[in-house]
Amino acid sequence: MKRPMKRISILVLAAAAGACAIASMAFTAGGAGDQGSPIYGITIPAGYRQWELISIAHEAGDFNDLRAVLGNAVAVKAFRDGTLPFPDGTIIARLAWKHTPSAANNKVFGREQSFVAGDATNVQFMVKDSKKYAATGGWGFAQFKDGKSADEALIKTCFPCHEPGKEHDLVFTYYAP
Amino acid sequence: MKRPMKRISILVLAAAAGACAIASMAFTAGGAGDQGSPIYGITIPAGYRQWELISIAHEAGDFNDLRAVLGNAVAVKAFRDGTLPFPDGTIIARLAWKHTPSAANNKVFGREQSFVAGDATNVQFMVKDSKKYAATGGWGFAQFKDGKSADEALIKTCFPCHEPGKEHDLVFTYYAP
Repeated sequence: MKRPMKRISILVLAAAAGACAIASMAFTAGGAGDQGSPIYGITIPAGYRQWELISIAHEAGDFNDLRAVLGNAVAVKAFRDGTLPFPDGTIIARLAWKHTPSAANNKVFGREQSFVAGDATNVQFMVKDSKKYAATGGWGFAQFKDGKSADEALIKTCFPCHEPGKEHDLVFTYYAP
Repeated sequence: MKRPMKRISILVLAAAAGACAIASMAFTAGGAGDQGSPIYGITIPAGYRQWELISIAHEAGDFNDLRAVLGNAVAVKAFRDGTLPFPDGTIIARLAWKHTPSAANNKVFGREQSFVAGDATNVQFMVKDSKKYAATGGWGFAQFKDGKSADEALIKTCFPCHEPGKEHDLVFTYYAP
């Protein structure tokens, strides 16, 4: 009876592994979505978390977050050189996390003053393609939460919100040396 | 009379250029200092501004800053893998800028809520070398402002301040995914 048992175990393991692989594929595909963001079709750029830091910010109020702006190589060069408009190929990533008090840090400082990056909220991308996105100042927009794109109603608000930043090519962030 | 004048001008220019080169060398040498930080002898690591982002924070109170923690390749791998203690060769950089209201951003949001990275305050480094810095938990410390090291009195406070962070190998920062 040993051999069949072993064979079944192997089959079960193989099936489990297969299911995991499929689940993992589904997660990847369903994550950024094959179609990407509504309107602009932007998917999550590979390796964006490894991009260089442009600057950071703190949005109080309803956002209540700490945010970091990262850029791909084209973006970083343009930010440093002050190139305007940003060249095609620029991708800017805005990460954000809840503005979260740190009890451990406050203990060290002896006062309530320390806030750190808590749970991630969402990540946004601006992609420069002056032809493809000519109707929106050359920029495509995207926002993802846990790998899922925001809906069209939200994505529609990106361009009009960024329009007041015309003098800096719709980009609110400046390089922090 | 033209030739001698020209020759003198060239000599003056050459002397000026020489003086600039020396001044520039002095600035570089005097900046990070050949000796680096007191006690630990740490100089400013080349290219640290291009390192990957570990996390960000906001210190209110007297600091009133926004800070970003970057790491070299050894640091980033250790943070991501949760390796403790941090391996020798780890270098962690803490950059900080004044927590500065952004009138431009507030206008877009229609309320006073936006704070960005203003003037740089100082940059700190922690360097892991378990033998060289055995007396201070394996860490060497440094702080620079405009390229100049903080004095010994300040650098002496680094280790005792970081000691409460023993459980995370004296490092207060955690990786923000």
